[in-house]
Amino acid sequence: MRKVYNFNAGPAMVPEEVLKQAQAEMLDWQGTGMSIMELGHRGHEFKEVAEQAEADLRELMEIPKNYHVLFLAGGATTQFAMVPLNLFGEKKVADYIETGVWSKKAVAEAKRYGTVNIAAHTEHRNHLAYVPTQEHWSLTKEAAYVHYTPNETIDGIEFHWVPQTGDVPLVADMTSNILSSPINVSDYGIIYAGAQKNVGQAGVTIVILREDLIKDPLPYTPTLYSYKTQTEHHSFYNTPPTYSWYIAGLVLAWLKRQGGVKAIYEVNQRKAKKLYAMINQHKDFYLCRVEPDYRSMENVMFYLHDEKLTPLFLEGAERQGLMNLRGHRVSGGVRASIYNAVPEEGVDLLVNFMADFVKRNG
Amino acid sequence: MRKVYNFNAGPAMVPEEVLKQAQAEMLDWQGTGMSIMELGHRGHEFKEVAEQAEADLRELMEIPKNYHVLFLAGGATTQFAMVPLNLFGEKKVADYIETGVWSKKAVAEAKRYGTVNIAAHTEHRNHLAYVPTQEHWSLTKEAAYVHYTPNETIDGIEFHWVPQTGDVPLVADMTSNILSSPINVSDYGIIYAGAQKNVGQAGVTIVILREDLIKDPLPYTPTLYSYKTQTEHHSFYNTPPTYSWYIAGLVLAWLKRQGGVKAIYEVNQRKAKKLYAMINQHKDFYLCRVEPDYRSMENVMFYLHDEKLTPLFLEGAERQGLMNLRGHRVSGGVRASIYNAVPEEGVDLLVNFMADFVKRNG
Repeated sequence: MRKVYNFNAGPAMVPEEVLKQAQAEMLDWQGTGMSIMELGHRGHEFKEVAEQAEADLRELMEIPKNYHVLFLAGGATTQFAMVPLNLFGEKKVADYIETGVWSKKAVAEAKRYGTVNIAAHTEHRNHLAYVPTQEHWSLTKEAAYVHYTPNETIDGIEFHWVPQTGDVPLVADMTSNILSSPINVSDYGIIYAGAQKNVGQAGVTIVILREDLIKDPLPYTPTLYSYKTQTEHHSFYNTPPTYSWYIAGLVLAWLKRQGGVKAIYEVNQRKAKKLYAMINQHKDFYLCRVEPDYRSMENVMFYLHDEKLTPLFLEGAERQGLMNLRGHRVSGGVRASIYNAVPEEGVDLLVNFMADFVKRNG
Repeated sequence: MRKVYNFNAGPAMVPEEVLKQAQAEMLDWQGTGMSIMELGHRGHEFKEVAEQAEADLRELMEIPKNYHVLFLAGGATTQFAMVPLNLFGEKKVADYIETGVWSKKAVAEAKRYGTVNIAAHTEHRNHLAYVPTQEHWSLTKEAAYVHYTPNETIDGIEFHWVPQTGDVPLVADMTSNILSSPINVSDYGIIYAGAQKNVGQAGVTIVILREDLIKDPLPYTPTLYSYKTQTEHHSFYNTPPTYSWYIAGLVLAWLKRQGGVKAIYEVNQRKAKKLYAMINQHKDFYLCRVEPDYRSMENVMFYLHDEKLTPLFLEGAERQGLMNLRGHRVSGGVRASIYNAVPEEGVDLLVNFMADFVKRNG
């Protein structure tokens, strides 16, 4: 058991088994006498690592054959540009659903390459944030795509339903909820996710891309930002971030050993329920500003009614090994990010600490 | 001592001390109980790592204060686009020196954003590759910049002199020779280098950028490709590749412990001299296709006159723990990449093996 539990929003906790394997293999990967970070990306050793990671991801997410899987350098912010650069063409309008800090960033980048229609955005009812149901959205019929952020890490808002966009491809930034719960990949045109929350370390982004969406990008697109080039070269157009890819592979193998996405989803549901139940139980003390139907399973955002107590809360938590619970600098408050790698016993400790904190300060 | 010596061109050998430190700290970075890959990029822990790496690089290269230092996601290929996207403006012409595979790739990308003038390119004299001296170059007076590749990893060609470009900024792709020998940073407008040869692992690229070159990039430039945005945010516009940055920092600290660039340059010169001397000593058996004045200190490329013997050579070397000596797929032959982290005793073993191989097969 680890000494501390890390509730950071990302880069975030990595399974202990993964770190131990990476540690054991650091100077001698599978009897080669070399670290995997020292091996050429075009050698058979790294190719095996890369292909196994893709195969495991395909198995875990049941990715259909007509989808490409890419492991690209950089974070999800690269995709804020790549999506419009590759999907705008004859159609120069895209619909965006704006639900928080990250979808707003995606909107700002897309506006540079075409027309963005904000088809829906977060609203507030009784001071609680929610997203209007789809019947109230103003989708564009001829949109190149619809983009949304199923989980907003800073705002703690999550969709627990999938938008229906008919023939218009649905594009999802799943950086903070990929592999958290079972999804139907066929519902999406593109899924992308920076790895540093649920798939290991920062520096690599997974893109799952329906093959019919691959076409020539806008003419001034940098070569590395072309889905066409990247799929033709299987993410090996240039040297990929090999070590981050390797760590992603170890996390995916670990997830398979946990029983896969359905099994981890059971755990994730319990973790989130325990925390929200604790907040509800002490609603005079703790405050969640998101409507119950939109509360994130990954990033449990809450405030102390008496904000002066927040530093005391954070310090007390740290003394018990419950680390990095401070909310994002733009939102303040407390945020418990409880991705796959955060063990249930860490959440149990946090829930106990929260109850105890009310007792001592309520 | 390591079991094997890795002569891979990149990703390449990493100092054993660095791997051991990374291994020791994998589950508990400096008493935090967490891996550095699990820590937030905006937390004080990673900030310290990031700032120390920059400080060490500045010290090692004596980087003047009017230069920014960036650690960006991705490889040097990102810079093939970033350089023209940020430096083309009123001036839409750039001079490129074409000396091998990598400078050709840089040319191809730049052509998409402006006019490229090939001011000089590799020539051959007595079947040996060389670069014409600068008096034979056709530089453009009003060029936005001059780009060259001081060392070509695939071709084994290196400049041992610095082009003089007056007021026109000189841009250098130093991916394979950064920190190999002392340079005067002020001779350059921009220096860039993917880390996977001399600064650790793939996934991060160092950019050293003179501040007067920062301006608005071409309008369609993705936000992450803007030097202006990246310098304003000190490479933290989005989540940087934190673990690759950390490993780079460990390598830089190791290099300081070796006595810095001047000290490692002494070793590097000895390593290269030993190999080229062995080739010269057996010129009826081994063949280097580069003129002596342009032979790379980092990538010693050679052929066996009897090419049928090459597989035997590579297999025999591997049996002695001399790994990854196969030449690049486009060039064939043998390539010994002997970056900073390849110890001199590894080169000594290789030289002995080469002598022995001639004895048994010559």
